[in-house]
Amino acid sequence: MTDLVIHNARVMTCDPSRSGLGIVDRGAIAIDAGVVSWVGPNDQRPHADREIDARGRLVTPGLVDCHTHAIFAGDRANEFGMRAEGRTYLEIAKAGGGINATLGPTRAASDDELIALMNARLDLALAGGTTTIEIKSGYDLTVDGELRLLRCIQRASAMRNQRLVPTLLAHLIPPERRDSRDAFVAEIHEQLIPKVAAERLATSVDVYCDEGAFTLAETTAILRAAKAAGLAVRGHVGQFKDLGAAPLLAELGALSADHVEQIDDAGIAHLAKAGTVAVMLPGACVQLRLPVPPVGKLRAAGVPMAVASDMNPGSSNCETLGVQMWLATTHFAMTVEETWLGVTRHAARALGLSGVGTLVKGAPGDVVVWNCDEPAHVPYRYGTNLVGAVFIAGVEQSR
Amino acid sequence: MTDLVIHNARVMTCDPSRSGLGIVDRGAIAIDAGVVSWVGPNDQRPHADREIDARGRLVTPGLVDCHTHAIFAGDRANEFGMRAEGRTYLEIAKAGGGINATLGPTRAASDDELIALMNARLDLALAGGTTTIEIKSGYDLTVDGELRLLRCIQRASAMRNQRLVPTLLAHLIPPERRDSRDAFVAEIHEQLIPKVAAERLATSVDVYCDEGAFTLAETTAILRAAKAAGLAVRGHVGQFKDLGAAPLLAELGALSADHVEQIDDAGIAHLAKAGTVAVMLPGACVQLRLPVPPVGKLRAAGVPMAVASDMNPGSSNCETLGVQMWLATTHFAMTVEETWLGVTRHAARALGLSGVGTLVKGAPGDVVVWNCDEPAHVPYRYGTNLVGAVFIAGVEQSR
Repeated sequence: MTDLVIHNARVMTCDPSRSGLGIVDRGAIAIDAGVVSWVGPNDQRPHADREIDARGRLVTPGLVDCHTHAIFAGDRANEFGMRAEGRTYLEIAKAGGGINATLGPTRAASDDELIALMNARLDLALAGGTTTIEIKSGYDLTVDGELRLLRCIQRASAMRNQRLVPTLLAHLIPPERRDSRDAFVAEIHEQLIPKVAAERLATSVDVYCDEGAFTLAETTAILRAAKAAGLAVRGHVGQFKDLGAAPLLAELGALSADHVEQIDDAGIAHLAKAGTVAVMLPGACVQLRLPVPPVGKLRAAGVPMAVASDMNPGSSNCETLGVQMWLATTHFAMTVEETWLGVTRHAARALGLSGVGTLVKGAPGDVVVWNCDEPAHVPYRYGTNLVGAVFIAGVEQSR
Repeated sequence: MTDLVIHNARVMTCDPSRSGLGIVDRGAIAIDAGVVSWVGPNDQRPHADREIDARGRLVTPGLVDCHTHAIFAGDRANEFGMRAEGRTYLEIAKAGGGINATLGPTRAASDDELIALMNARLDLALAGGTTTIEIKSGYDLTVDGELRLLRCIQRASAMRNQRLVPTLLAHLIPPERRDSRDAFVAEIHEQLIPKVAAERLATSVDVYCDEGAFTLAETTAILRAAKAAGLAVRGHVGQFKDLGAAPLLAELGALSADHVEQIDDAGIAHLAKAGTVAVMLPGACVQLRLPVPPVGKLRAAGVPMAVASDMNPGSSNCETLGVQMWLATTHFAMTVEETWLGVTRHAARALGLSGVGTLVKGAPGDVVVWNCDEPAHVPYRYGTNLVGAVFIAGVEQSR
């Protein structure tokens, strides 16, 4: 007997061997020992210990949020209010806003406090259907502090059913290191990265390569060290200004290039050739009133696109993917199919995970049953959580 | 003894006699016989039969959604998908999309079906903190059919605790009346409006005065008839093109001018002079990729602004105000204070309601207790429902 069958469903498989979203109408899915064991027509389904009638509803892979900064302490509602009033970046910084408003409280918080704060965010993500979630370090900005953040993610991972994917992020030069910038960058690639690799605290290294963050030369040094240490690489690039990181990301076989509000045609061609995923972060784009990334050009070049929350206290304080999917299909002019692949299979690809984000034989039994029957309903009915039930490795999650 | 006291709260009164949002820190609120009987400092609060400790959280007026089209049948997810694919309006219309996809199913639905569909939407609105909600007719477009929709709203109103505010909307010329357009307009002002007034089926009449909808001359005829029948008037204006309705709205003392993506300086001056509320509909603006309304000019001219969901199947399938508040403070560059007044006191003003949308002595006891302590948190923490508890006339609502 199979452990679980969900039947009478519209199953969105996101199977790469099928076209589009790989939908099986009047379908069913079987999960055994935590893994998808069968997907097919409803009338050919196996029997199971537990059988769930989806009543014609949409059943999809659990959502994958491939870009978050979910480990931090401190509150920046005040800064949000100042931005809404049109205050400048400098005025906000003088009032104690910006990254300092997160660095201080994060450094001061205990491990348990950080984990409790993160767990509350991950619970909200789960309620929104997210079963796999990437979490970047980057709000301590010292070698020991960044290691501590990654160890906290590791501890939380052991406590939770959600699949947590830790990333070491070279986020910014901290204010106290502006006069020893080169030494700080050297600490990252000479000390931090080898330790992260040795302790297996992250699977990839991400660098924020943009105006006000790391230069292209610094990014190159950090990402080459990451690659040498056997870690995958990613880049926050072109959110404000394109510093020309695309050739580097392509050369290193980067999993993803994230933001890309600013990227030129040659850069897009590099991403396409390397198979690097472009991660769209529409909430942060709207909140910072940035131009929309060149979605049409990315599509035309064949660059796979993902859609993520960018969950962070400064520019996108959002734990869920539903509203991001609405923004992707409207503000970013992505199709419904692109948006769905962007929070499933393509998001998993941006994390270097295969199988995750699909419902094919052998994939993890991570499933969302939605309170609707059309894929378009999830972005279309924005502002409401349409998640009916969430399963991770075949086990229903209480939310 | 007082019926209910909510204490240990940050009470946002939206009291027009106080500055800004009229916040009482360490405050409390008392409700008696469904009405606010006292607001003040926590340590001076009266005793009550039921006392609720807000534990320092934010307590606000129940939200007011002053612009929705929540009564309709039919689904337009397919059309949403086509728009995302970049299909033109004409292609969508040929595929059966557009208003026809709502007119047919709405006309075919029974009263009970329409009320059940609307109630499901109103339940979601309530869960998002909306205690007063305007609902426009406009998806039948025959005299008898529009009366039926308004009677359904009246029936639903008797079944629900939420305050429903019905509006007669002259929405569009229906396809079958394009050759008898003048006669259709005459039916509205000669037959429909007098019946609505006689049966008290709506408190105001709204006209969609824009390219593809009613001309300024038609709008004038309809709104003058409404005024003559003792009804308040409103206008959907300048969503796509400014047809110059602002002087008319000002002359008639219109409660609101809604959308106003397109409005010139003279039009803004007219609204300001008449005290007409400009209703911002940021979700529809984003979904249709329209330019942002001139918020800065409206502010400078002293036009009160409201923020609403525009809940409708074509351009904003959203029942809740949280995501609209985030869009207002980010995409529309409204301040946190403007946004809050826009979903409380100013929204009530757009509906001609006084007291509603405030927590002052004598106002309805409609209250939301939020799971946060700062007003900015509600727009800032987008994508998550922060509503803790909702009270209507002092009675806690199950959600």
